[in-house]
Amino acid sequence: MGECRETGDLTEDLATNAASPESIRHSIRNGEWRRGTGEIGAGFVQANLVALPAEMALAFLTFCWRNSRACPLLDVTDVGSSRPLLAAPSADLRTDLPRYRVYEKGRIVAEPESVVQQWSESHVGFLLGCSFTFEAALLEAGIRLRHIEEGKVVSMFLTNWPCRPSPPFGGQLVVSMRPIPRDKVRLAHEISARFPFAHGAPVHVGNPEQLGIKDLSRPDYGDPVSVRPNEEPVFWACGVTGQLAAAQVKSGVVIGHYPGHMFITDWPSRALTSHRLPADWERLGG
Amino acid sequence: MGECRETGDLTEDLATNAASPESIRHSIRNGEWRRGTGEIGAGFVQANLVALPAEMALAFLTFCWRNSRACPLLDVTDVGSSRPLLAAPSADLRTDLPRYRVYEKGRIVAEPESVVQQWSESHVGFLLGCSFTFEAALLEAGIRLRHIEEGKVVSMFLTNWPCRPSPPFGGQLVVSMRPIPRDKVRLAHEISARFPFAHGAPVHVGNPEQLGIKDLSRPDYGDPVSVRPNEEPVFWACGVTGQLAAAQVKSGVVIGHYPGHMFITDWPSRALTSHRLPADWERLGG
Repeated sequence: MGECRETGDLTEDLATNAASPESIRHSIRNGEWRRGTGEIGAGFVQANLVALPAEMALAFLTFCWRNSRACPLLDVTDVGSSRPLLAAPSADLRTDLPRYRVYEKGRIVAEPESVVQQWSESHVGFLLGCSFTFEAALLEAGIRLRHIEEGKVVSMFLTNWPCRPSPPFGGQLVVSMRPIPRDKVRLAHEISARFPFAHGAPVHVGNPEQLGIKDLSRPDYGDPVSVRPNEEPVFWACGVTGQLAAAQVKSGVVIGHYPGHMFITDWPSRALTSHRLPADWERLGG
Repeated sequence: MGECRETGDLTEDLATNAASPESIRHSIRNGEWRRGTGEIGAGFVQANLVALPAEMALAFLTFCWRNSRACPLLDVTDVGSSRPLLAAPSADLRTDLPRYRVYEKGRIVAEPESVVQQWSESHVGFLLGCSFTFEAALLEAGIRLRHIEEGKVVSMFLTNWPCRPSPPFGGQLVVSMRPIPRDKVRLAHEISARFPFAHGAPVHVGNPEQLGIKDLSRPDYGDPVSVRPNEEPVFWACGVTGQLAAAQVKSGVVIGHYPGHMFITDWPSRALTSHRLPADWERLGG
């Protein structure tokens, strides 16, 4: 789950976060930005990508709905289309992420920088909310996040909490863990709860065994970070849940983002709060 | 769009609103309650029903997602199942509404009290949020609602605002209109905004022509009510939008609720506020 470290042409706009989502996606599409998206697009909602054949799409959409803490739906494309009409109408999901993962029969078969060849006439693309959105809000509120300070990928764990199934999709909930000072846990809870489309409030605080996690120093995905004596481990539902559920399906080509290489939407993060559904961004029709 | 007026066996529990959602559904299933659900189940989220064949279900789910003010998704069943696993796991959507409407080739062909015969192995059921939820909150805040005081069905209008299409589903937004005293409009806006899964904030206040509505005294559905000089007409997205979009499809059997005869979920209305997605009601798995 490491970051992709080759250096792209880093324009001044990208470095200073002054770029628009459209221009960032343009740079990504043209191969000028090939690294993870954590460093760019601050202030805009980023999203997990899952694309799979239409015959599985209804069941997957239902899976996301039933497990919306882990898989908060932001947008879904028409069959065969790679255009996210709500989240970024000018974007192409086949080219506008820096890197992808392609699964066949449950195994990773490629990690390309474009999936124009793999995205068929029958593929349906799903964008699911991502923790970058609430992390930015936590940082703004003065809550320090160790994995960011240490330049690591957040610790993620496969729990023993079953997802609500929507056959053939199932599996267990994946969570991310962030150590939070005990006197900030309540604030962290309140802030993240404002972003139900970016996993919302924590699913658990304090006891890893409640989630079936044996050893916090050995995450299933991402990097380990220490939990200090004045801190609690705080667990949030994680978008990897959806990608894992989709990747385990044994038929068809499943496409996901490469870890940390997310899709950048047109939506300002501040707008993705609890009073709005994604589809409400703009006035309906007219 | 009139109410169904035959009288059922009205138990004391139903009359005093002390009944549980499960016992209310039991009374409905046994034919002991055949009228509209506006009078019962206060305090619990009520829902619009749309059921259609699986081959159209992905497109309809996408339509709901793209038009979530009008069609806020509360639950979706597995293919062939009539059990809403999130909203009321013990319920049967084929029997637990007092009355249904059945459409074929875009026309109403039956208005039965059960759809056990019509609900096929390929049907998928959708529950969509309903304005009863925010109306209860408005009343609690001291905002009077004329259609309720006058015993009428709320005025509904077909606007000229196009829905975001998800072929074959499309059409125009339907809105409900409630006259609100000018000095309460802001409060009504704030309260209803807390319920994004029951249509959320109004889509427009004040000028019917902005929505393509020519004459407020001639609603397309429901009953007319007067708007007094100290009042503004306030327009909310309406769940009829989804039923209309589904009913216009020319193939297959489409099932909906009979107007005002909704499905009563297990969810307390107070819980359906903005910080929670429906699937978050209970702890994930475990």
